[in-house]
Amino acid sequence: MNNILDKTIREIKSADREVMKQSKEKIDNLTKPIGSLGEMENIAIKFSGITGRVENNIHKKNIIIMCADNGVVEEEVSACPKSLTATVTNNFTRGITGVCVLGAFSDSSLTVVDIGVDSDELSSKVLDRKISYGTKNIAKGPAMTRADAVSAIETGIEVIESLVSEGVDLIGTGEMGIGNTTTSIAVLASLTGLSVDSLCGKGSGLTDSQFEKKKDVIKKAISVNKPDKTDPIDVLMKVGGLDIAGLCGCFLGAAMKRVPIVIDGLISSIAALCAMRINPKVCDYIFSSHLSAEPAAKCVLDELGISAMIDLKMRLGEGSGCPLAFNIIEASLYTVNNMGTFDDANIVNDFLIDMRCD
Amino acid sequence: MNNILDKTIREIKSADREVMKQSKEKIDNLTKPIGSLGEMENIAIKFSGITGRVENNIHKKNIIIMCADNGVVEEEVSACPKSLTATVTNNFTRGITGVCVLGAFSDSSLTVVDIGVDSDELSSKVLDRKISYGTKNIAKGPAMTRADAVSAIETGIEVIESLVSEGVDLIGTGEMGIGNTTTSIAVLASLTGLSVDSLCGKGSGLTDSQFEKKKDVIKKAISVNKPDKTDPIDVLMKVGGLDIAGLCGCFLGAAMKRVPIVIDGLISSIAALCAMRINPKVCDYIFSSHLSAEPAAKCVLDELGISAMIDLKMRLGEGSGCPLAFNIIEASLYTVNNMGTFDDANIVNDFLIDMRCD
Repeated sequence: MNNILDKTIREIKSADREVMKQSKEKIDNLTKPIGSLGEMENIAIKFSGITGRVENNIHKKNIIIMCADNGVVEEEVSACPKSLTATVTNNFTRGITGVCVLGAFSDSSLTVVDIGVDSDELSSKVLDRKISYGTKNIAKGPAMTRADAVSAIETGIEVIESLVSEGVDLIGTGEMGIGNTTTSIAVLASLTGLSVDSLCGKGSGLTDSQFEKKKDVIKKAISVNKPDKTDPIDVLMKVGGLDIAGLCGCFLGAAMKRVPIVIDGLISSIAALCAMRINPKVCDYIFSSHLSAEPAAKCVLDELGISAMIDLKMRLGEGSGCPLAFNIIEASLYTVNNMGTFDDANIVNDFLIDMRCD
Repeated sequence: MNNILDKTIREIKSADREVMKQSKEKIDNLTKPIGSLGEMENIAIKFSGITGRVENNIHKKNIIIMCADNGVVEEEVSACPKSLTATVTNNFTRGITGVCVLGAFSDSSLTVVDIGVDSDELSSKVLDRKISYGTKNIAKGPAMTRADAVSAIETGIEVIESLVSEGVDLIGTGEMGIGNTTTSIAVLASLTGLSVDSLCGKGSGLTDSQFEKKKDVIKKAISVNKPDKTDPIDVLMKVGGLDIAGLCGCFLGAAMKRVPIVIDGLISSIAALCAMRINPKVCDYIFSSHLSAEPAAKCVLDELGISAMIDLKMRLGEGSGCPLAFNIIEASLYTVNNMGTFDDANIVNDFLIDMRCD
C-alpha cells in the first residue's frame, strides 16, 4: 500500500547545510557589500543546498501543468463552464496560452498532464494519467477516495521522476481546472483553521451574490466532510482536487530527487503547503515566483516561510509566474558564478572590511 | 543659456493615449481572463504609449552608469573611502561587478560615464564627461554651481541622444559615488519636505553613532543651503550630486526621445523624481524595477506613482536591478505579441463573456 508515496516521504532529506555554508562564503568574497544582492544571494545559496554543489547552472527547465475537473462546479462557484478545462488543456499543447508563450520566451518546456479532466477528447500531446473524469461535488461528500488521492500524489511523484531522468533540473508548477479556487481555498482553510471569509477571493467574474454562494459552498464542504487538519491526504481527498493532489506529489518528488521546484500562484502554493505538512523538509526545495493577486496568496507563502520574488498582480494561473522566476533564479546563479572577487577588484585589504560592510 | 535643457523640457510630450487604448483592446482579446496578466499587461500598454506602436520588440538595451564623487564624504558619512568611486568606476569596464555580470546575462551593454570622479586615472572605456573632480561638501555650502548642475543634466540628455541614435530602445539607470545615499536623501527630503529621520537608512556598514552623524550632516546641509523645493535644479545644485543630476537628465532625455527608461534603486529613483518635478510628463516613460531595501525607496516610488515589479531586497545600486526588469518588460511584450486570441482558442462566443470575466 502507498509504496511510492511512503518511499518518497522516507527518502526526502534536508538541503546540504555544509554546501550552503561554502556557497555563502564564496558569495561573501564577491566584489560587493555583503548581502547587497539580497534574495539573489539566498537563491544561489538555497540552490547549492539542493544540488550539493557550490557552483550551479541550469540546463533544462520544465513546467508541469496538472489539469483536472471539479465536481463542485455544479454548485455554480465559477463564472466559467466546466468544459473550459478540457478546451484550455488542449490549448496548452497548441502554444497559444499565457504559460505557453512565457514558457517559449524562457526556453522552458511544458508537461501537460490530464490527471482528471472530464473529457475523452484531449490532444495526444497531453500526458494521459487520468485517475477519474473529475472529482465529486465536495459540497455533498468527499471529492475522491483516499486511494485516488494517493494515486494523484504518486502521479505527481512519477512525473517528476520521469522529467529528472530526462535531465530536467528546474521545475515549475501550474494547473488548470475550473472550480479549483474553490477547492484550494477549502484545502487551505482546512489545513490552517483560518476562516473562509478571510481567505476567499471574489475574482472579477463573480457577482456579489455568486461570491457569497462560493464562500457558503466552501464552508458547507468543510462542515459536511470534516477533514482532519493533521492529515493532509484526508484534507485532499475530502475537499481537494486531483490537480492539487498531483502538484502536492510534484513537490514531494522534487524534494526526493533533490531538484529545485517553483511555485506559481495560489493553487500551486496550497499544493506546496500540503506537501510541507506531509514532510516539512520539502520547503528546502521550493522557490517562490510572484505574489498572486488572490487575497490568500500572502498567507500561504507565510505558512511556507518564503517570500515572493515578483509582484505583478498576476492571477492567470497555468504556471505563468514560473518562467519569470526562472529568469531571476538563472540570473542569480549566473551572477554568483561570474562576478569578480575582492582580489580581482583591486580593492586593497585596508578597505576590504569597509567595502564588505557597505 | 540652458539651450539643451530648455529645448528638452519643451519637447517632452505625453504618451500616446490613443495607441495605448488600441494596445489594451488587443490585449483584452487574448485568450485569458481580462486583466489576469496584471502589471504585465500595463507594461505592454505603457510601452505602446511611449513608442506609438501597438506591437513592440526590443532590439538594443543599455544601462547608463553615472559616476561622481561627493565632497560630503569628508564628513565621514560613508564607511567606504572616497577612492572607491574611481576603483569601482574602472571595474565597470572590466566586467566584474554586479551590474556588469547581470548586464551580460541580459544581453545589455553598459555606458559608464565619468561625470565627476575625483581621479585622472580612469579607463579609456569610461566616457569622459567630467564636469568637476567631484562636488563640494554640502554640509558647508552648495554642492556645485547652478551652471554645473545644468551641465550635468544636459550631459545626461546628450548621453541618451547618442545611445538612441545608435538604436538603443530600452535604457537602464545606475550610479556609483561614495556618499551618494547622503546626497540623494538630502535631495529627497528637500523635494518632499519629509523628515530626514524617516527617510535615511542606516546601511549595514555604519555604527549607531555614524548613523546619527549621517542624519545630522543631511539636516545641516539642508539648513545651510536652504534649497528651494519648487526648483529641482536649485535642490540638485545645493544638496545633490553630479551623478543624480546626470541621471535626472537621462530621464528627461528619454522622455524627449520617447524611449522607455528603467529606474534601479533609491538613487536613480530620486533622480527620476527630480525629472518629474521639472516636467511631470516624464513619468509616462519610466518603468520601475525592484524595491530597494533602503527605507525611502517605497516613498519615492509612491511619489512617482509607480510600483516595483521585483522584490529581492537588493541594495547594491550600480543599476543592478535594471537587467531583471528588462527581462520582465521583454517577457510582457513577447507575451502580448504571441498569445492566441479567443478566436484561436476555440472558445465559442457563448462562453466568451464569462471567460473574459474570469
